[in-house]
Parts: sequence; structure tokens; C-alpha cells
Amino acid sequence: MKLARIRQENSTELAIVKKHALFPLIENYAYLAGQGRTPLAWAQSGVEALLAAGDDAMAIVRRAYEAVDLPYRIPIDHALLLSPIHRPSKIIAIGLNYWDHCHEQNVKPPDHPIVFTKFSTAIVGPEATVQWDPALTQKVDFEAELAVVIGKTARHVRKEVALDYVAGYTCANDISARDLQFGDKQWVRGKSLDTFAPLGPWLVTADEIASPNQLTIRSTVNDQIMQDSNTAEMIFDIPTLIAFASRAFTLLPGDIILTGTPNGVGVFREPPVFLHDGDEVTVEITGIGTLHNHCRELTP
Amino acid sequence: MKLARIRQENSTELAIVKKHALFPLIENYAYLAGQGRTPLAWAQSGVEALLAAGDDAMAIVRRAYEAVDLPYRIPIDHALLLSPIHRPSKIIAIGLNYWDHCHEQNVKPPDHPIVFTKFSTAIVGPEATVQWDPALTQKVDFEAELAVVIGKTARHVRKEVALDYVAGYTCANDISARDLQFGDKQWVRGKSLDTFAPLGPWLVTADEIASPNQLTIRSTVNDQIMQDSNTAEMIFDIPTLIAFASRAFTLLPGDIILTGTPNGVGVFREPPVFLHDGDEVTVEITGIGTLHNHCRELTP
Repeated sequence: MKLARIRQENSTELAIVKKHALFPLIENYAYLAGQGRTPLAWAQSGVEALLAAGDDAMAIVRRAYEAVDLPYRIPIDHALLLSPIHRPSKIIAIGLNYWDHCHEQNVKPPDHPIVFTKFSTAIVGPEATVQWDPALTQKVDFEAELAVVIGKTARHVRKEVALDYVAGYTCANDISARDLQFGDKQWVRGKSLDTFAPLGPWLVTADEIASPNQLTIRSTVNDQIMQDSNTAEMIFDIPTLIAFASRAFTLLPGDIILTGTPNGVGVFREPPVFLHDGDEVTVEITGIGTLHNHCRELTP
Repeated sequence: MKLARIRQENSTELAIVKKHALFPLIENYAYLAGQGRTPLAWAQSGVEALLAAGDDAMAIVRRAYEAVDLPYRIPIDHALLLSPIHRPSKIIAIGLNYWDHCHEQNVKPPDHPIVFTKFSTAIVGPEATVQWDPALTQKVDFEAELAVVIGKTARHVRKEVALDYVAGYTCANDISARDLQFGDKQWVRGKSLDTFAPLGPWLVTADEIASPNQLTIRSTVNDQIMQDSNTAEMIFDIPTLIAFASRAFTLLPGDIILTGTPNGVGVFREPPVFLHDGDEVTVEITGIGTLHNHCRELTP
């Protein structure tokens, strides 16, 4: 099942993605339930609110997904998609987690996952504009990443059962201001500028991704392939990351684990490639979809 | 005005602190409004929900605060205080921001604020237990910090008006697993273990703190003073930090800026001092109050 968040006039709403169309949950649920427009509070927020609402809420979504006849339908081309997750309690990002990404920068693969983070205020959706002040940064880079979305509260989770805590997956572009990231040493500022966390186009539930560590992952800049790898290149696989993170922190529904980026990022190319005003970037992962964003330099 | 969050049976609630007592908002508001128990939704969450609810909500709290007669009263000793802020969108923590803290570790003061972060899932309240797995860390340290709480959405705020965006202040103990912090190089994991962000005892609104950069700040371990400095020692003062942070990120109501710690932390002492099972720690800031927490090693 694919779950999207869309803008509807002045509000936002969850929608099911099916057969090249979006089915807004609130209207279709009201139809299925045979009553007036029901205020499903969690359907007006990000997928994290649905996940926090628990199994009953997800069962409502499943029933709608499986219904043959859903009267409210928006063609994908007419929908304004937002990031499926809006305000997670945290984004746990993992540095240096692809063998090929370690090789390209000649660093020794780490002996345990390196955690950094991006602030949730950086999250934007598909087709959103990634923008930056050229007086603040001039070295803006892309990083294709598989984003794991946590489905239920997790603490001290064993690797063997870790995937039970995954609600689903989406694509992320871990946009990075390299000058700030490396100048500060602590990465969080350069990783968290507003609009620097594109996420989407939708959440694909875990049941559709049998082997999350066997997915092709690519990024492009202006239609040129820049990264082309496979999540099998991860040094620490997804169960290991969940076990490692949940040993330190309580993971909450909607929390995101960014699982690292493969080789081919701009800063380690010869010569380096940075993003510029007008560039178009994508992240594409097999079985999930393509996350497309525009780039803009903007003096505030 | 002092605003606390308290546990009431199975729920939580905001309360006004006045004359050594706590006045729960929901019950007293219902009395003042002359009607039944009114569900002030924002009063059941952290102060961040009150701030997000805007000026009308704050006006309700002010009216209650100024009322002569509030019938529902809990003596401070009988209240279970929680962290005033529960789940901010982010904690912007500033490293190396006290002159005396740079001197003690012989490092050059930074030429701009160094941003790091703690995950919000680490937040606990006054009297809570700071706990850690001794198999994960054995170098747990304390850091007294003044926490600035943002009152309204802020982006590209000029230093001259930055204090207008401050809702108030509280005490924070930036508990740090030094082995993880320095081993990872990225500080976020060692700073974000569950329970590693004690906050409180309450929020003191900005109108009560005329000069936030002239406050005595202290920490103790088992009643022994470990840090004893003044917020005047900050290298980058509070308006500068807000201007700097809001140039990179949108600040949301309830967001916290941890303004750095003065000298005297455990790791730079000769010999180093780390926290142990059974230790009692406090952070005390003039005009705000004392944040007291217990320490416990705990194998999960």
C-alpha cells in the first residue's frame, strides 16, 4: 500500500495511492462508512499521526485500500503531494554506511553506525524547491537515501525482530551544505537548512518491500545519473541500524532512519559537482518511486 | 509568570506556579469562566502547545495568573512536576559558548556558534532519574545550561528584535556520554540517550528575566558545587544565537536553544569526574529555580 499526504485547499490530508490516482481518505472513508464527513483527526496530519493512532486506524486505511469502489479520486498529475511524514520526533541519519561511499572518499568503514541528524523543519515534499541563501552556503550537495519509517514505539529491539517495527519506506534526498557541514565539524547545521530534507513521494508499507536491503538506488541531477547503487551496499543493514538506534533512544511512530548514501555524491567527484539555481534533482528507489525537486538560490 | 507541567492521575496538565503552590489550569479556568470543565486542548500538553496556540491562549493563562482567587491549589511538595516542554520540534544546542569553558579545555573560542543537538525523546523533568546502561557508556557528565524557549515562529530574525521571540527560560542539564560523544565525533548520540535532557523545574516567562545574560548559573553533584559561573560569560549572547539559528532554520514555538555550559564539567577536571549510580545532580539559575535529578546505572 502506498500512502501519500496531499494538500486539499487549505488543509492537508492522507490519501491512498492506487492505479495512478490518489484517493483522499477522509471523503472516501465517509462514503464507505455510510455517514457524513467523519473527522479522522489523524488523517489530517502526516503519516506519523496515523501510525501513532495505532492498529485500528491502520485497519481503517486498509479497508479503504481494499474497497473496490472509492468515489473520490484525484489523478496523480492533479494532486499536490507533500512529504508523507511531516514532523517526526527525530530523524536518525547514518553517516558512511555504504561500502562504495567509503571507498570513494578513501575512509575506513566505521566499526559502528555513525549517527547524525537533520531537523524536522527541513522536511519538504516531492516537487518542492530546495533553496538556500548563497551568502550562507555555496556548496550544496545531493545524497540519495532510503528512508525507513518506524511504525511503533521501539526500545532495545533485537535485530531479529527489528523489521517488525518498520511501517514502511520512502525516498529521501539528504541535501547537505558541505561548507557548513565540514566547517562546523558537527554536521547538523549544514544538513538541516530549511528545505534540505526532501522526502517522498509517498510511504510504501513494509509488506510491499520484501527485501529492503536489495533495492536499486539512484540520484540524478538534470537527468544525468550521479549515484547508481544498491541498498545491498549498506555496511550496517536496516535491522542492525534499528537495533543500534533503539539501544540508545526510544524510537517513536513516524521517526525516520536515513540509512546513508552510496557513492557518487558531488563533493567527492573530480572536479566536485555542487547544485546550482535551476538544477533539477531526483532520488529513485526500486519499488518506491521517484522523488523530484527543484533547486533555487535565493537571497532572503 | 512561572508555568509548569504536572502529572494529574493519568493525564498531564499545565499549571501556574505562585506562592509555593501550583494552580492547575484546566480546573481553575473552568471556575473563572463560570462553567463546567472546559477542555483547553493545549493545557493538556507541554508549554509548546500553549505557545503554538498563540496570544489568545496565553491571555487566558495571564488572566488566571492575575486572578486573586484560584480555588484549585496543589502545594509544590505534593505535585509531580514534568518537563515544561515535552516534544519540541528541535533542540538547538550550542557548543563551546562560554569563555571559561573554552579556557578549561585549552581550545580557541569558536568564531561562530557551533550547533549540535539532542533528540527530544531524551527530555525528562525535575526529580526524574537520569539513567544509562553501563555497557553502553561509563563516562556520563553533567552540563548546566540556560534553556531559551522560543515563543513564536522565527526565521531570519535580526539580533535587535530577537528577544521578542523568546517565550521564557528554564534550566537544562545537558547530560553527555563523553565516550560516545567523542568516539562518534558527531555528538548527537552521546547527547541524546533517553533521560539525558533534564529540563525544568518550570518555564519562567521572559518578562520576569530582564537580563538573561546576567544570571548566575551553577551545577552541583551530591551537594558539591561543580560549576559556578554567569551567563555573562557566553561568547555569543542570546540575541546573537537566535539570529544565527534563525538564519539557517525556522524556529517553531517551543523550540529550545541550549546556550552552552560554563567551566567545571566533569570530563575536563583533574582527575575527571563522572556521574555514578546514586549521584544527585542539580542545575540552578538565578531567577529561574533549581532542577534536581537522580542518577542510576541500569542494565536493561
